[in-house]
Amino acid sequence: MMNTTPAGYTYDQNLPSSPVTRSQLDELLTDVMWTDEDAAALRRAGDILTPRVSEILDAWYDFIGSTPHLVTVFRGADGEPDADYLARVRARFERWVVDLCTRDFDEQWLAYQEEIGLRHTSKKNETDNVDSPVAHVPMSHLFALVVPVTLSVKEFLVQAESDRDEVEAMHQAWFKAVTVTLVLWSRPYAGDLW
Amino acid sequence: MMNTTPAGYTYDQNLPSSPVTRSQLDELLTDVMWTDEDAAALRRAGDILTPRVSEILDAWYDFIGSTPHLVTVFRGADGEPDADYLARVRARFERWVVDLCTRDFDEQWLAYQEEIGLRHTSKKNETDNVDSPVAHVPMSHLFALVVPVTLSVKEFLVQAESDRDEVEAMHQAWFKAVTVTLVLWSRPYAGDLW
Repeated sequence: MMNTTPAGYTYDQNLPSSPVTRSQLDELLTDVMWTDEDAAALRRAGDILTPRVSEILDAWYDFIGSTPHLVTVFRGADGEPDADYLARVRARFERWVVDLCTRDFDEQWLAYQEEIGLRHTSKKNETDNVDSPVAHVPMSHLFALVVPVTLSVKEFLVQAESDRDEVEAMHQAWFKAVTVTLVLWSRPYAGDLW
Repeated sequence: MMNTTPAGYTYDQNLPSSPVTRSQLDELLTDVMWTDEDAAALRRAGDILTPRVSEILDAWYDFIGSTPHLVTVFRGADGEPDADYLARVRARFERWVVDLCTRDFDEQWLAYQEEIGLRHTSKKNETDNVDSPVAHVPMSHLFALVVPVTLSVKEFLVQAESDRDEVEAMHQAWFKAVTVTLVLWSRPYAGDLW
């Protein structure tokens, strides 16, 4: 499943450094009360989620695809949702799940989060060479999706782990990590107010 | 406890309409998968949280007060945290918890969320007549606080309700509602990209 590199996935391609410093990242991790236990729990969540990442994306894409104001960002030049664009983003979205659970939150990770933020704003459409009438993903919806992205993962954890406290530990770590990445992706939207 | 109106609390004072329309709010509620069951669960959560709102704020203010990069927004002209400013914001923060659990998400509620957003940006310091060197609350921290504000409430629910599924229902409704308000507060940060 994870044997092919998604189109447009440039994690390992010497991206420019993020304008967000390591110390700013540490502040965000403090905000979300990130601990070493969370880091370990997120790795364990990754063991469960990685083999099922395609099913997770099925759920998210069902939701996005059935919600007109969300799927609209995937419109192509003809005004209709662009299936190829949707598929390419989906492959990178899957990889984001795996990366979030398995990568270290280091400079390279930070640089790629910035790249993802830019791909929601000034660089939207560029990576996938899409002639879309939609020039950015609205920040409001990007943020609000913290809820479905957090909550929908729980059933996958529950199906693999019977101990409710352990599910809770993995789920909290996931919630915290998702929040940090969404905040990092929001940087290009807010400029100096970020 | 809720008998006095907090200083600077203008919910009922004929605020200008929010630039966010009712239909945009409905989209956000769709994003967070808001249901009638959530609305009812949030009311039940309010019955538990309202009498304990001062303890909830104790927990949040302990966290903010002990985190230098968070308490910095409360600095006064002398560069030190301003106790009066902290106290005035705290009283309105308590009221926000109660409002969130008890108010309808209508035009008046929307207008006050916009006012709160402005008080984190262009109108920061104005309401409390503070001569602070900090002109805005960084959006990154405002949004990252979705995690402690969500997670810290759970123990209050658990202490009052033994049924774990009912706790979960109330907690999810709280998470969704907090997310929607934070997204609304983020509007002034992002302009047309919101």
